[in-house]
Amino acid sequence: MTNLKLISESQSFGGKVGFYSHPSSACNGEMRFAVYQPPQASQQPVPILYFLAGLTCTEENFIVKAGAQRYAAEYGLMLVAPDTSPRNSGIPGEDEDWDFGTGAGFYVDATTEPWRSHYQMYSYVVQELPAIITANFPAIAEKQGIFGHSMGGHGALVCALRNPKLYQSVSAFAPITAPMRCPWGQKAFSRYLGTNQQDWRNYDASELIKLGRYHSPILIDQGTADKFLAEQLLPQVFEQSCQAVNQPLNLRYQEGYDHSYYVRFVHSK
Amino acid sequence: MTNLKLISESQSFGGKVGFYSHPSSACNGEMRFAVYQPPQASQQPVPILYFLAGLTCTEENFIVKAGAQRYAAEYGLMLVAPDTSPRNSGIPGEDEDWDFGTGAGFYVDATTEPWRSHYQMYSYVVQELPAIITANFPAIAEKQGIFGHSMGGHGALVCALRNPKLYQSVSAFAPITAPMRCPWGQKAFSRYLGTNQQDWRNYDASELIKLGRYHSPILIDQGTADKFLAEQLLPQVFEQSCQAVNQPLNLRYQEGYDHSYYVRFVHSK
Repeated sequence: MTNLKLISESQSFGGKVGFYSHPSSACNGEMRFAVYQPPQASQQPVPILYFLAGLTCTEENFIVKAGAQRYAAEYGLMLVAPDTSPRNSGIPGEDEDWDFGTGAGFYVDATTEPWRSHYQMYSYVVQELPAIITANFPAIAEKQGIFGHSMGGHGALVCALRNPKLYQSVSAFAPITAPMRCPWGQKAFSRYLGTNQQDWRNYDASELIKLGRYHSPILIDQGTADKFLAEQLLPQVFEQSCQAVNQPLNLRYQEGYDHSYYVRFVHSK
Repeated sequence: MTNLKLISESQSFGGKVGFYSHPSSACNGEMRFAVYQPPQASQQPVPILYFLAGLTCTEENFIVKAGAQRYAAEYGLMLVAPDTSPRNSGIPGEDEDWDFGTGAGFYVDATTEPWRSHYQMYSYVVQELPAIITANFPAIAEKQGIFGHSMGGHGALVCALRNPKLYQSVSAFAPITAPMRCPWGQKAFSRYLGTNQQDWRNYDASELIKLGRYHSPILIDQGTADKFLAEQLLPQVFEQSCQAVNQPLNLRYQEGYDHSYYVRFVHSK
């Protein structure tokens, strides 16, 4: 049993929201995550849906702001939201940028100094966290889905594409789909992974999809009024990569929606 | 037309969330509020539902966290969420306490120095803000409802009870129902209104209800695991006052829910 610490717990929609911290072996320090256990989880194990958050976020943003508990309670899903990076690692400069370091782990396993000692978010999300969840909560280990927003949408796509059997579903809101070609991704990858761009391909959804190893459908929602659309998110690059390998992609452009917390669609297109 | 400044605007559930600032005559300085305009408002004027927030909150908390836009879009309601106090008024000590001054206007018109120059939240909520809303947004002036949480639940009850014809509905989550009898209320009232407790009755729902001037139903949801229940919220005092004058009150105790943002009920009791 992992050394989990319950920070707070509140009842919500008949289930419960809990915030936890634990010593992480992947990230070599304390990590935090949030779990919503739906009412059904008090009777039997339930499927798990992981949400990966975007730049500057913590484990709290999605759980506090998205209102997803309502749906998780309706459908009997456990929601798991990890933090977006290690914190207080002691690495010099970790807090200097809002788009790199703290709050910006980019869901990669860093290979460069000084970041590699703590910034192992890919392994944390794909391996360590699911092991902790299934060991400590009434979850069905083989029924996992993953999604995310922006940097977290990038993370969700990469985790799924690199592990085609691990998740039952993958989707994203306004994901960074081609990080090798955008400023956010280039900044993060060059510092976490070094200057050899061959190494970057392991974390670029538009490159990974071209390997042809993933075959399940992918859903992406992207607002047309998103100010990061043209420079950072580049869904058209991902779409082209999908077309090149006949990968099923449902890319829904949502007219007039932006990149904010307020993006919600009443009706699917 | 009021000198309204649009700070930000985002599409949400087919409508739009906007944050605004404006010079307030009631509060003698800049005030902020948020408005959610449902999709229906682009076709015709819609009813208005005011939400008053609790201690330490701003105009943002409810709009970001509650997920109410979904329902507002479904029912065609405009949501209006004002800030909880003046800010940066320059009054010495306004930022010293979390439960008094900034973020804690308590929806009263202060009568004491130095607070009376700015802390006129009752007049702001009941008069100035509705005038601004109906002048600037597609709203039906005569169809207003009001609700709130904690200190804001107190405010909603007081605004409705003192103006029996002004609102079509009033309800509250975990409201401070008898502020004269609880530490939060006593601290705020003694400093905003002075030491004559006769003056406090104008802002105490459990006292106002005894006047017998309000006759419409009142709805209150109160979690049983709310740590402020016994000392600060005192719904049983309000319930007794209602019973004394045959005031219709639907006081729903929600088993296991606390005072947090996560309090949501799937089913009404």
